[in-house]
Amino acid sequence: MNGADAILATLADNGVEACFANPGTSEMHFVSALDREPRIRPVLCLFEGVVTGAADGYGRMAGKPAVTLLHLGPGYANGVANLHNARRAYTPIVNVIGDHATYHRKYDAPLTSDIEALARPNSRWIGVAEDADHAAYLAAEAVRHSFGPPGGSATLVLPADCAWSPATRKGGVAERPMPAAPDGAQVDAAARALKAAAKPVVLIGGQACEARGLAAAGRLAAHGIRVLTDTFVARQPRGGARYSPDRMPYFAEMALSDLAGADLMVLAGTTQPVAFFAYPAMPSVLVPEGCQELSLAGRAEDAGAALEALADALGAPAEAAPNGYAVPERPTGEINAYTIGASIARHMPEETVISDDAVTSGLPIFMQTRGARPHDWLALTGGAIGQGIPVAIGAAVACPDKKVLCLTGDGAGMYTVQGLWTIARESLDVTVVVFANHSYRILGIELSRTGAGKPGVSAASLLDLGDPRIDWTALARGMGLPAVRCETAEAFDAALAGAMGQKGPIVIEAAMS
Amino acid sequence: MNGADAILATLADNGVEACFANPGTSEMHFVSALDREPRIRPVLCLFEGVVTGAADGYGRMAGKPAVTLLHLGPGYANGVANLHNARRAYTPIVNVIGDHATYHRKYDAPLTSDIEALARPNSRWIGVAEDADHAAYLAAEAVRHSFGPPGGSATLVLPADCAWSPATRKGGVAERPMPAAPDGAQVDAAARALKAAAKPVVLIGGQACEARGLAAAGRLAAHGIRVLTDTFVARQPRGGARYSPDRMPYFAEMALSDLAGADLMVLAGTTQPVAFFAYPAMPSVLVPEGCQELSLAGRAEDAGAALEALADALGAPAEAAPNGYAVPERPTGEINAYTIGASIARHMPEETVISDDAVTSGLPIFMQTRGARPHDWLALTGGAIGQGIPVAIGAAVACPDKKVLCLTGDGAGMYTVQGLWTIARESLDVTVVVFANHSYRILGIELSRTGAGKPGVSAASLLDLGDPRIDWTALARGMGLPAVRCETAEAFDAALAGAMGQKGPIVIEAAMS
Repeated sequence: MNGADAILATLADNGVEACFANPGTSEMHFVSALDREPRIRPVLCLFEGVVTGAADGYGRMAGKPAVTLLHLGPGYANGVANLHNARRAYTPIVNVIGDHATYHRKYDAPLTSDIEALARPNSRWIGVAEDADHAAYLAAEAVRHSFGPPGGSATLVLPADCAWSPATRKGGVAERPMPAAPDGAQVDAAARALKAAAKPVVLIGGQACEARGLAAAGRLAAHGIRVLTDTFVARQPRGGARYSPDRMPYFAEMALSDLAGADLMVLAGTTQPVAFFAYPAMPSVLVPEGCQELSLAGRAEDAGAALEALADALGAPAEAAPNGYAVPERPTGEINAYTIGASIARHMPEETVISDDAVTSGLPIFMQTRGARPHDWLALTGGAIGQGIPVAIGAAVACPDKKVLCLTGDGAGMYTVQGLWTIARESLDVTVVVFANHSYRILGIELSRTGAGKPGVSAASLLDLGDPRIDWTALARGMGLPAVRCETAEAFDAALAGAMGQKGPIVIEAAMS
Repeated sequence: MNGADAILATLADNGVEACFANPGTSEMHFVSALDREPRIRPVLCLFEGVVTGAADGYGRMAGKPAVTLLHLGPGYANGVANLHNARRAYTPIVNVIGDHATYHRKYDAPLTSDIEALARPNSRWIGVAEDADHAAYLAAEAVRHSFGPPGGSATLVLPADCAWSPATRKGGVAERPMPAAPDGAQVDAAARALKAAAKPVVLIGGQACEARGLAAAGRLAAHGIRVLTDTFVARQPRGGARYSPDRMPYFAEMALSDLAGADLMVLAGTTQPVAFFAYPAMPSVLVPEGCQELSLAGRAEDAGAALEALADALGAPAEAAPNGYAVPERPTGEINAYTIGASIARHMPEETVISDDAVTSGLPIFMQTRGARPHDWLALTGGAIGQGIPVAIGAAVACPDKKVLCLTGDGAGMYTVQGLWTIARESLDVTVVVFANHSYRILGIELSRTGAGKPGVSAASLLDLGDPRIDWTALARGMGLPAVRCETAEAFDAALAGAMGQKGPIVIEAAMS
């Protein structure tokens, strides 16, 4: 048993079942050890941004970490953007970053870099192995720390000699840390404040948006209290009889207009809402002036239980009011986010997982699927586009029996387009819908919102993806996936019905203009 | 004039002519200001690894920095791997990283991260703007610091309000720092040591591999002294009558065997050679035991002038010996790196720029083009694959009159495949040759060299790109480029002859197996 064997056995003992990887020379012993650890499934991704995004999607759906295998500082750095999104999703992930052998690091070979410095901003814990036994010990620590609470990336830097040297023992089995029980005083304070407030709102996020918290939030709504979710929620069960609250609008002025007159904001599983970006002469904090803020439960607490206790304390009804949702009619005519949303609501099967990186197209679809068949919605939590395809991969690996529907803008999709190959390689049950509007459309909106003026030739060239137009069916086929391009709402509806009705991967290019 | 205008005017005043960009909301005023600064050409890349690699290729060929435009921490992080390569190439680059407005940062909005921490490992200088005038001042400082010596990335963090607020003045015009003149005592010491040594070798790298240093090195060789270059040189003029020294072998055991018996190593423009990776029971330092090391000139010194002074001191001949190179015959049969190298040597026009990310296929081509028509060879300096296509983009923007030939492995090419779109968008005169061996072949070699054993099913799956096979002609066409797949040496020779004989971009997939 070498260090790599001991690490993998320890990870498997701690429940790790998937390894998303893009290895290099310094990880060869880890790669070889995967042959001897059948409990962990290796999944090759052709770029590290796919690796880390897949680990995020896996962690959101499995509720436990996958392990990533990354090649020194540059390999890790390629995965940072999606680890940033995962940090904002509080997803448990164990990153193993291969490094030069301990004795080799001082020579500053070409691939040497300051891995710890690169990893620090997106790691809730970092361990640097000193020898093989230490590496195995750290593997268990990494799993434990990945759970938080709240969850996050635990990073294990693994010098090559710690992997190839003999190990004498595995690491232990770490106890999973649990979120703190709700604080009775906070629950009482929130109940009192809600009773006294004229126009209160309860803002939920993170763990409060899981099944238990949502059900309790639905009881609060049935009691007459307005409930909102964060704009971007890591994983939100929706559809069917589930309570589906509104979410905070993305744009600051819309959020503040929506909240006008609110005199109390109770926060559960989240923190004070702030604008995604600053704009000239626009406030940063999305709480109306004079509105009291009160935290019911932070991210490290059991916000779902706290909401339940709050609903009980208020004597709220036992259940949320029914949705009153009607399945949309078959859409016709020009294809747009509304017609696509209607088709998705019509055809997606029960337990679909939606990976949303659709940017400007996401909200109309979110609205229309409110009461569709039960599904999970995984949002872009950290604003770093390129999450959609990778997160879909991870969700599909975590949930092989569920249909995964990836919604991605064309600009966002190009960031991690290599993920299509992994979907093909693993025959994942993923339908990728690409919103081909041939632009960074959100930036066209933001350019005017920031007061930067009308775009001239240079500015316009930096927002436009239309010259040349990207042919997503060619890209998909080039990576081994079937693909179809739809030009009308009717064609899309038919293509999506087909994709939803059978197993296996496909790419649907929705021609938006 | 707002801060963005002042920055761009300052950059242009300091000779910056190209902006490789992937902007977001926080960069909208910078984008808009590009409309008002016609001296700087904006080039959109669909992923930041393309942005930074293009800036590297540009800087290597132009000898001055391009500016990159990147979107907060995640956008910067996406570009880190190629900035790592650029750090090892000592390429001058100015990175502008847009950040939240100064007053917005404290709210920890979703895209907030510790940009300085992420940027530190690959920046030789970081400036964080505090207001619009300060930003303009820092723009000039960034250009100055990018030159070193030696060159590197200078990073300017630009909060959105520093771009959109009024500026009262531009930054200055920075004086370009020059490398230090050679140290006469070091030159004398090296000359004395070389005279006394039985089997000396001169190792050159970096600035010593530019025209002046190479010519002087050729004189040393004509004087009977063995000259080697670093394994990976940022930019090496080769071909024609230019002196073309051997390079240090990549694998440690081959390098040490090549150097066996050497009793003196004189270093010019580089440092002690070390193994790219550590291997069990293999030394890290690639200097034979008992071999004396002597630095003639470090990276911050004028190593070319130092080599010239050394050649004079030794009374070396005025010129290198002629190459005695014969153009290869037309290759036939199965396609491989040797037949491809022969075709390249036959057909590439004068002044071609080769961007090499071909991994296992690179060396045979390097050998065969030794005396081909004059060209520049840009190597993968930092070991982070995915450099080839982006560096080709930057070289083509810097040198619109030169043919650019990108050599990329299929594994490496997938890392930054989005770059094909920019080649099409800008109609760059780039021929991309993809070595389609459907594997991370180097890792197959390294797996056995590291003693990790024979790959089983899991390990093999992490080295194999063959299931499904990637169709590069489909990927290229999907991004607007013409493409051809060649299955024989004859077909490749004909396709390359066509590509070299006309202007404009094309992708050639070389079917290697």
